[in-house]
Amino acid sequence: MGYVKWSYQTLNQFCEDVFRAFGFDEEQSRIIKDVLLTADLYGIESHGMQRMVRYHKGIEKGSIHLDAKPEVVFDTPISAVIEGNNAMGQVVAHRAMQMAIEKAKASGVGIVSVRNSNHYGIAGYYAKMAVDEGLMGFSCTNSEAIMVPTFARQAMLGSNPIALAMPADPYPFWFDSSTTVVTRGKLEIYNKSGKPLPEGWALDENGQPSSEAPRVLKNIVEKNGGGIMPLGGNTETSGSHKGYGYGMICEIFSSILSQGVNSDECCTFEDKTGICHGFAAVNPAYFGEPEDIRAHLSAFMQKLREAPVADGAERIYTHGEKEVFAEKDRRENGISVADGTMMELADLCDYLKLDFAKYFEGYEIPKDAGFFGGY
Amino acid sequence: MGYVKWSYQTLNQFCEDVFRAFGFDEEQSRIIKDVLLTADLYGIESHGMQRMVRYHKGIEKGSIHLDAKPEVVFDTPISAVIEGNNAMGQVVAHRAMQMAIEKAKASGVGIVSVRNSNHYGIAGYYAKMAVDEGLMGFSCTNSEAIMVPTFARQAMLGSNPIALAMPADPYPFWFDSSTTVVTRGKLEIYNKSGKPLPEGWALDENGQPSSEAPRVLKNIVEKNGGGIMPLGGNTETSGSHKGYGYGMICEIFSSILSQGVNSDECCTFEDKTGICHGFAAVNPAYFGEPEDIRAHLSAFMQKLREAPVADGAERIYTHGEKEVFAEKDRRENGISVADGTMMELADLCDYLKLDFAKYFEGYEIPKDAGFFGGY
Repeated sequence: MGYVKWSYQTLNQFCEDVFRAFGFDEEQSRIIKDVLLTADLYGIESHGMQRMVRYHKGIEKGSIHLDAKPEVVFDTPISAVIEGNNAMGQVVAHRAMQMAIEKAKASGVGIVSVRNSNHYGIAGYYAKMAVDEGLMGFSCTNSEAIMVPTFARQAMLGSNPIALAMPADPYPFWFDSSTTVVTRGKLEIYNKSGKPLPEGWALDENGQPSSEAPRVLKNIVEKNGGGIMPLGGNTETSGSHKGYGYGMICEIFSSILSQGVNSDECCTFEDKTGICHGFAAVNPAYFGEPEDIRAHLSAFMQKLREAPVADGAERIYTHGEKEVFAEKDRRENGISVADGTMMELADLCDYLKLDFAKYFEGYEIPKDAGFFGGY
Repeated sequence: MGYVKWSYQTLNQFCEDVFRAFGFDEEQSRIIKDVLLTADLYGIESHGMQRMVRYHKGIEKGSIHLDAKPEVVFDTPISAVIEGNNAMGQVVAHRAMQMAIEKAKASGVGIVSVRNSNHYGIAGYYAKMAVDEGLMGFSCTNSEAIMVPTFARQAMLGSNPIALAMPADPYPFWFDSSTTVVTRGKLEIYNKSGKPLPEGWALDENGQPSSEAPRVLKNIVEKNGGGIMPLGGNTETSGSHKGYGYGMICEIFSSILSQGVNSDECCTFEDKTGICHGFAAVNPAYFGEPEDIRAHLSAFMQKLREAPVADGAERIYTHGEKEVFAEKDRRENGISVADGTMMELADLCDYLKLDFAKYFEGYEIPKDAGFFGGY
């Protein structure tokens, strides 16, 4: 599969115009675009431009309601619940995190739980919003069932990512990861390459370990059983119950506190996905001098980076460091987009009556560009 | 190794008398005893009676200061920082969680970070305190370095357990687990039995996977390098960076917010351990009708328990369920204590001038009872 590189500016303009053309207002379009492109800048390709087709489909199918207005249905100085009314996930999530941040500034902490939203991009984007304001940020979301709980044969929880970020220098602590051992996107990549899946990733329809990506993916789509293992695999010996537990913690902050749709029913409806999110911001000033706390974390993270390295390893990373390097590289050298994704973007331009060639001058879709597959 | 069973009442009286004899007051003794025996009731033997020797040593050595008074050094309606002054971990932790609970009742949420405490027993005990008051509870603690970060060869983080509990019926969601794949206690058990360690647990002094329990344990004691892998193993393919990330989240709530000692330096001092804790309580009433939220979680947990089971598996558990069953069994049938632990308790009685035979009438320590060896 081929890739083509575009400058951040090119993709930025394209994305903003696409979401304007869908009917989102300027502010909404800016938010959605920023969430997507931050993923691409951070090197998390699976959640960037490649996802445009999914949003396109969601809007067409009617699970994303373009004109929906999220409502705050519960509100206190430290908490809120938002009914998303099936609006675009990024728009609902951005507002919810903004509320959490404002509450944390005024009252020390803000926790906001959201129901009936949609896919919101990378969880870490919202945690980072808090860090940019000098706060600790937390974000999580449930999603279509794909995680098979320990000892089960059927997916009951989503990939249920949890993100937590905290200000530090020279770059923040920024943790963002699915509570499954990997995401579905990784299975898609193995599927395309024809390689067997690594041990400890996936389960077949009988709840047994499987290295067959096509079989597992087919089962997921057809809801035949099986799916992806929790972080920690599928035995208690390897800690399966722990990944399953973190998946539950995600569920508690998203679908339980908001009394929304649990992962096992997410994306099973005609007119909505039911996806729920959880957000929190914590103000370090409620624990001491923020600069001292920041320095304390920075010093520890520096020690981690400088710790003795395992034989054969290059270096030790702290969480969020790779993303800082990736962003620097992509801002300087451009963002790679798969030919398959470019083909989807061309389709999108047809649908929205946008001029594909205006943005991607001189680019021709190779004859062998398959659809990347979305996920 | 042999075991002997004692009734809860017997051990209850014994423990309380032991801590009174050490010099703790009635309330303190009750708290310490309850934390220890809850571990035994829950089937978490490694953190129960078996730990008495460790507290005994800590008090003798001077890292646990019997007469220390913890101080609240920062206090807001939603947060606090406690300077433990090297007091007994359970006593500091109980007070901190009590503060978090009171704040959550009055203001919706309470987050309390603690520095310079000591080993506090099972993390989940404190999370359960919140559940008993109808609140969500969170507890974590850092500890002596034993987790080797991804790509490192030296332990830099503790086993850093995280516990989160939430009210539900017929029993609460109660998650309590180390962010390492296993705890040191599991390695000790393999060491004693002479069996090779399972794959994905431990690293040798060069940061390479090792199945040799004696070698890994010797390295840990001598600080030669190596240790236990994070949840997710030691490769990014299996999610090592995720377990390492949860270890960091524990560190942030414990040693970072309190500006205390990070795991890499915990237990390296003569006169203290420096161990730090983090606690939080969240009031569901700040998100909706608590009974509705409770019912929503209960229903989802029931669905999980009733989900289709993997071929070869007996059933699916929800977090905290096994502990409920264990407690019922142990209250009815007694608590098993290893002969090696009984030998330590006899030593303890000598030291404290307590009459061992008064509590454990008719019991004789078998000649082949070795020391259980800590944890």
